[in-house]
Amino acid sequence: MKKILVVQGANMAYLGRRQPELYGTTTALELDAMLQAHARCNDYSIEIFYTHVEGEAISRLYRAVGEGIDGLVMNPAGFLYAGYALRDCLRAVPFPYIEVHMTNLDKRGMHSVLAETAVGLIAGFGIRSYLLGLEAMLAHVDPPTL
Amino acid sequence: MKKILVVQGANMAYLGRRQPELYGTTTALELDAMLQAHARCNDYSIEIFYTHVEGEAISRLYRAVGEGIDGLVMNPAGFLYAGYALRDCLRAVPFPYIEVHMTNLDKRGMHSVLAETAVGLIAGFGIRSYLLGLEAMLAHVDPPTL
Amino acid sequence: MKKILVVQGANMAYLGRRQPELYGTTTALELDAMLQAHARCNDYSIEIFYTHVEGEAISRLYRAVGEGIDGLVMNPAGFLYAGYALRDCLRAVPFPYIEVHMTNLDKRGMHSVLAETAVGLIAGFGIRSYLLGLEAMLAHVDPPTL
Amino acid sequence: MKKILVVQGANMAYLGRRQPELYGTTTALELDAMLQAHARCNDYSIEIFYTHVEGEAISRLYRAVGEGIDGLVMNPAGFLYAGYALRDCLRAVPFPYIEVHMTNLDKRGMHSVLAETAVGLIAGFGIRSYLLGLEAMLAHVDPPTL
Amino acid sequence: MKKILVVQGANMAYLGRRQPELYGTTTALELDAMLQAHARCNDYSIEIFYTHVEGEAISRLYRAVGEGIDGLVMNPAGFLYAGYALRDCLRAVPFPYIEVHMTNLDKRGMHSVLAETAVGLIAGFGIRSYLLGLEAMLAHVDPPTL
Amino acid sequence: MKKILVVQGANMAYLGRRQPELYGTTTALELDAMLQAHARCNDYSIEIFYTHVEGEAISRLYRAVGEGIDGLVMNPAGFLYAGYALRDCLRAVPFPYIEVHMTNLDKRGMHSVLAETAVGLIAGFGIRSYLLGLEAMLAHVDPPTL
Amino acid sequence: MKKILVVQGANMAYLGRRQPELYGTTTALELDAMLQAHARCNDYSIEIFYTHVEGEAISRLYRAVGEGIDGLVMNPAGFLYAGYALRDCLRAVPFPYIEVHMTNLDKRGMHSVLAETAVGLIAGFGIRSYLLGLEAMLAHVDPPTL
Amino acid sequence: MKKILVVQGANMAYLGRRQPELYGTTTALELDAMLQAHARCNDYSIEIFYTHVEGEAISRLYRAVGEGIDGLVMNPAGFLYAGYALRDCLRAVPFPYIEVHMTNLDKRGMHSVLAETAVGLIAGFGIRSYLLGLEAMLAHVDPPTL
Amino acid sequence: MKKILVVQGANMAYLGRRQPELYGTTTALELDAMLQAHARCNDYSIEIFYTHVEGEAISRLYRAVGEGIDGLVMNPAGFLYAGYALRDCLRAVPFPYIEVHMTNLDKRGMHSVLAETAVGLIAGFGIRSYLLGLEAMLAHVDPPTL
Amino acid sequence: MKKILVVQGANMAYLGRRQPELYGTTTALELDAMLQAHARCNDYSIEIFYTHVEGEAISRLYRAVGEGIDGLVMNPAGFLYAGYALRDCLRAVPFPYIEVHMTNLDKRGMHSVLAETAVGLIAGFGIRSYLLGLEAMLAHVDPPTL
Amino acid sequence: MKKILVVQGANMAYLGRRQPELYGTTTALELDAMLQAHARCNDYSIEIFYTHVEGEAISRLYRAVGEGIDGLVMNPAGFLYAGYALRDCLRAVPFPYIEVHMTNLDKRGMHSVLAETAVGLIAGFGIRSYLLGLEAMLAHVDPPTL
Amino acid sequence: MKKILVVQGANMAYLGRRQPELYGTTTALELDAMLQAHARCNDYSIEIFYTHVEGEAISRLYRAVGEGIDGLVMNPAGFLYAGYALRDCLRAVPFPYIEVHMTNLDKRGMHSVLAETAVGLIAGFGIRSYLLGLEAMLAHVDPPTL
Repeated sequence: MKKILVVQGANMAYLGRRQPELYGTTTALELDAMLQAHARCNDYSIEIFYTHVEGEAISRLYRAVGEGIDGLVMNPAGFLYAGYALRDCLRAVPFPYIEVHMTNLDKRGMHSVLAETAVGLIAGFGIRSYLLGLEAMLAHVDPPTL
Repeated sequence: MKKILVVQGANMAYLGRRQPELYGTTTALELDAMLQAHARCNDYSIEIFYTHVEGEAISRLYRAVGEGIDGLVMNPAGFLYAGYALRDCLRAVPFPYIEVHMTNLDKRGMHSVLAETAVGLIAGFGIRSYLLGLEAMLAHVDPPTL
Repeated sequence: MKKILVVQGANMAYLGRRQPELYGTTTALELDAMLQAHARCNDYSIEIFYTHVEGEAISRLYRAVGEGIDGLVMNPAGFLYAGYALRDCLRAVPFPYIEVHMTNLDKRGMHSVLAETAVGLIAGFGIRSYLLGLEAMLAHVDPPTL
Repeated sequence: MKKILVVQGANMAYLGRRQPELYGTTTALELDAMLQAHARCNDYSIEIFYTHVEGEAISRLYRAVGEGIDGLVMNPAGFLYAGYALRDCLRAVPFPYIEVHMTNLDKRGMHSVLAETAVGLIAGFGIRSYLLGLEAMLAHVDPPTL
Repeated sequence: MKKILVVQGANMAYLGRRQPELYGTTTALELDAMLQAHARCNDYSIEIFYTHVEGEAISRLYRAVGEGIDGLVMNPAGFLYAGYALRDCLRAVPFPYIEVHMTNLDKRGMHSVLAETAVGLIAGFGIRSYLLGLEAMLAHVDPPTL
Repeated sequence: MKKILVVQGANMAYLGRRQPELYGTTTALELDAMLQAHARCNDYSIEIFYTHVEGEAISRLYRAVGEGIDGLVMNPAGFLYAGYALRDCLRAVPFPYIEVHMTNLDKRGMHSVLAETAVGLIAGFGIRSYLLGLEAMLAHVDPPTL
Repeated sequence: MKKILVVQGANMAYLGRRQPELYGTTTALELDAMLQAHARCNDYSIEIFYTHVEGEAISRLYRAVGEGIDGLVMNPAGFLYAGYALRDCLRAVPFPYIEVHMTNLDKRGMHSVLAETAVGLIAGFGIRSYLLGLEAMLAHVDPPTL
Repeated sequence: MKKILVVQGANMAYLGRRQPELYGTTTALELDAMLQAHARCNDYSIEIFYTHVEGEAISRLYRAVGEGIDGLVMNPAGFLYAGYALRDCLRAVPFPYIEVHMTNLDKRGMHSVLAETAVGLIAGFGIRSYLLGLEAMLAHVDPPTL
Repeated sequence: MKKILVVQGANMAYLGRRQPELYGTTTALELDAMLQAHARCNDYSIEIFYTHVEGEAISRLYRAVGEGIDGLVMNPAGFLYAGYALRDCLRAVPFPYIEVHMTNLDKRGMHSVLAETAVGLIAGFGIRSYLLGLEAMLAHVDPPTL
Repeated sequence: MKKILVVQGANMAYLGRRQPELYGTTTALELDAMLQAHARCNDYSIEIFYTHVEGEAISRLYRAVGEGIDGLVMNPAGFLYAGYALRDCLRAVPFPYIEVHMTNLDKRGMHSVLAETAVGLIAGFGIRSYLLGLEAMLAHVDPPTL
Repeated sequence: MKKILVVQGANMAYLGRRQPELYGTTTALELDAMLQAHARCNDYSIEIFYTHVEGEAISRLYRAVGEGIDGLVMNPAGFLYAGYALRDCLRAVPFPYIEVHMTNLDKRGMHSVLAETAVGLIAGFGIRSYLLGLEAMLAHVDPPTL
Repeated sequence: MKKILVVQGANMAYLGRRQPELYGTTTALELDAMLQAHARCNDYSIEIFYTHVEGEAISRLYRAVGEGIDGLVMNPAGFLYAGYALRDCLRAVPFPYIEVHMTNLDKRGMHSVLAETAVGLIAGFGIRSYLLGLEAMLAHVDPPTL
């Protein structure tokens, strides 16, 4: 069974109460339930990790190397602006990384310094960005015949 | 039945023979078949339009307004660099737009001037970017209960 | 009788339906009628040419050299961003060029790369910009004693 | 009867003797007579104010608020480069502003910091720019049925 | 009784021993006593939180939402350079924020990326900046009749 | 008795009628009364000087050197953009300068070229910025034991 | 027999009548005859293609892949400024490309975005640039022993 | 007898008391006496004009055209940063202009926007810069045989 | 006996397994042993501190002030990009700092924002950079007669 | 008989042994022989001058003025980056200059500061660039009837 | 007797024959005679040194330290663009340096990287710039009572 | 026995007398003796070459290729700013290069254009930088078992 790590970067723990006109009203707890449900339905395991501290995200990723995860789906959130140390970490770890954002960064004039280390990027679809990201990861680690 | 327009921008007609280390060996014809199959399976109709001329893409989009399409999935390809007139057009048309790219633009140091007009962006998953884009569009125009 | 060519650049054909808060609700057809009426009243002839393709605008201008037009009034619209080839063409043709815009570009933080080739610029008066442009052209090619 | 204020910015008082290859040989006095004649013919009143001092232009505009003018036509001339305080003033006053320039600023690689506060811009037609500006103002404050 | 949270960013814990020519010799402990005294005299409660870790400041702010504080006075100190994640947090929390600095940042050629999220900014008055900030906050949450 | 000079830069004379959503509805006259009252209560004298002309502000400051004022509180307003000559003057005069702004300049993407010459900066608290500035000046010229 | 494609970009069709002080008075027709004569003398075949539309140039190049041409000599002319889609095409096609310009771009402060995809660049020799380009191409595809 | 106008820009009236480490302790009065003495000795007449207001400098220069002065020696001082309107004036007046500065602007990282309109520039020699400037002007308007 | 603190910044704990083509295969543990051996041989004591969290590095440095260390040798690693708060800390602490990097940053187009606070910089010699850094520190705190 | 000077700039003397993947294996000696042979065949004389010192190249060019050469073909090589003094010299000398490079500078992201002074530029054809440059020079100084 | 060294930078040896519209027709020889005459008349000695090689200028200046010269007057000419090594040298030598240019650099959009090391700058007066520079140097090393 | 070439760039010959607050008082002669002593003690040979002329440094390096040196230790000094031709040379030569600086360039806001071609960089340790550089070179060409 595939193991996927989901990392939620700075400010994501406050989801649902933070700028709902941008991020909607689904809370972090509800999102977690949704992702776990998706994992059960599609027969893979998932762990969700929240942190506001960039260095803790780095620690979590190096620990994941030992745990043998198959892929990382991360919404870097507040780390997207200046997360250069995290970017170095993403270049170092052996597992594939898919970056997701709830909003379309281009529409907001923002740019993620981490995106260049990802397999791919999915942005703009609200909480559905996570589901698309997980599906893209499943297909990436176990490519179906198209 | 939902109608989705797929636009393939400059250079896409040569897919499969152009820089296969970047874009793979699936040809434009094979991709079209794949997308049509996806439409049949998911019960929506699709039209695929190829052009190297930005002004023709603009004409096609205005024509689509009259045809009442439900959404646009476009890989702007060569139009991503300086397609400012197309960007104005995308701001004018009433239907939602999802932008897809086969490669992760961030990894290549590129940026699409069109992306800011899109609902969302999907980049980096090869021809699977199209399938993810179509699924995101279907969910966007007819949101499932999550 | 003076002959004036009016060129409508990329996206202008959709006038009246595109961002009416910016461009009003007068359609391209209605605008054409208004300009033709102005020509009849002021005893000059007018031809109006619409295109979304920069290269077609270039072709039209070179053809106009042979036709012996007296002046060009153009709203470059979508060509204002990157119409460098059209700019070279405007430098080459012998007839005077007046550039018109329906909106005040400065207010929107935009700049036309074509404007430096014009006799003058009129911007911000909606469809009246065309009428002012035509009057400025008539006075330019046949200066009244002030 | 409509009242229009015409402001002539820094260096305009020297018109006719200053760089005639750019600005022609019509003097400030002759221009004033021409504008007054235009006002008489078109049945509106006009006041023309010359100053080289940006702060005096600001004072004049605030005074005009009390006088109830209908519109401002200004050639900012030397104030176009760094007239930021005047720009703030133009944002504050309630009457419409139309900016005119005798030369095409784009051709000379110049840009007016005031232009973004205007209804519209007319540039490049010599002293005729003023007449076009006054006509645009009359139509703006009392729109004819087109 | 109003509750105000005071946050001291990176390097502030070392106050009084760090570059005294810039920051004076009052220590963090002495400053805390001074602020507590001000709170007692003015009949509001205060909590002072020190951290060198941006992510911990973010956590503290979200916790403060639940605690129902009335306002935040923060000297971001070392977070002013690249505290983009903290800036996102400040945009998300519902209570007002006043930013204080002991030195005049402009004199040192520095700029705080957080300042744009504040009600207002007070900089350059040494430890008195805190007192001015607290008074500004008290007036902000409970405006006196001037 | 301490003497403080308050200078109101370009556009401030129009306070209360200019962009009230930014600057409120208190007029210049009402503000003056408020500041005079503050001076009487706190036993210092105040003079308030309004000008739209940067050079007049410069003259006023040099005259103040002879008058022996104790401090300058200034809202440079329209001079903040390009008041470089005033900046040189502020570097030359011997009395302390505190800069105040009614709005938070950072929130509006603005920057004052004068701020680097000030003791400190207070911005964003509406007309209360003046009161905080005067209090900061009183404490600066006659530091209380904290 | 070697087959070489010569492409003339935007504005070249007007050669001989456009800015003769820069480009001389040889017309496009006369130039074509000259190039054909050169081909006959040197025993290779040549096709000359003119277009003002960047997308048509792209189509022509992809068609040339099927025709098995040996090399491309192109004067991008008006496409040199923003021909990014054409640049992507030049990277994709398998045949060698030599870029020619009649004028020395450096002297005019211009830069071709296409040049980085070429084998080499020849600029500044008027219509002789084409002959030098053809000779360089013949030597490139069939290197003589030096 | 030659007539030379000397203009002293913003802040120069305070000479001798302003930043003496940069500008020395000679006062404006003493400098004037020195320049007048130089004029008497060298048999030309001089007028010295001080102003802090850029617009007044502009007025003075246009008035000087009527007075038939032979040359202008100016220390723009505070106008060097943003005196663009004055620069336009200097381009318009017919008499030669020599710019002087007491300090070496390059050493201070400064640049005068007016300098490009001058015959020449003399900077860095304290009050002697004026004497060198006057001598250069005398030689310029009446070239000695070298 | 001299006491030297060695700090290993973000991502260094993963040494030996991270991008071995850049950083070699020596692990953090092996490196530590090597440095401890060097300390024993050269008769000084060493403490090695690893962290991925910038704020923890700051805390460690302030603690070191109390411990009376003689010098700091640090490879900031992931903190080199945006470690501005750490830079402020390095300016505040009283002990000398030598910065080491395993790779030549210039070759990789990188720049450390911390380097300006160091006594000196050693970069490009793999793990030997640490030994050279320690030797430079020993000589710095106890300069041998050369 | 025409006399052409060939100058080889900094690093060219090491040709054939320096980065052969870029510059091939032909040595400077072999190249010289090739160029001399070309001169004999085409009946003109050639002198080849190598130097690593920009000032020596300048001296050589001024000396060439006295010798009456007909043209200069130069590969500036290492002088292309910052050879501003040489550029001034090239503007001063009366003979035509053609610049050659063995590689396509655009492909390598480089730009020659000298190129703007040349008649034309030939780049990217290895040692053949020299032969094309010499032929272009012969045609330039003695234009054949095309 | 004072000893002054005059250095003539790259391209100056060709004076009188190089761009006479900029630099006049006086040759280097004639200029030297003029400067020597000035030295004799004013009772100081002069040595004039010409070089096109920046490193030779550096050597000459260090040699001058030993010779005990009183001042350096230099026209860096071609060294003004990138003479950074010479700039370091000028910072190191103990004698004063005055920089002269025959043309007004500002008018030509140029800037000397050396100027910041000079006592002062004189530019724009043709060969008279040298005489003014020598007089400024004499007054600098032996200040007259003004 | 290993042979190491030490190159001292522009201005180094004046060491000990030039800005001693930056570079100390050790003269070039004394430094040479120190380096020779180090070579004798460590059983390798050394040659030290001083030049102010970039092109002579280039010549020396190419000559060193023939001499079979093992490594180059260079303080580029004045060549660090614009030594692009030297940089090309360093890319061409086969021996390893270590760059040393006496001061910490980062502290002075400087950057060496040569550094990217080095094995490594040592900066900030005064004349000890040379000794560290030589030791790093010895270890580089003959790596000890760590």
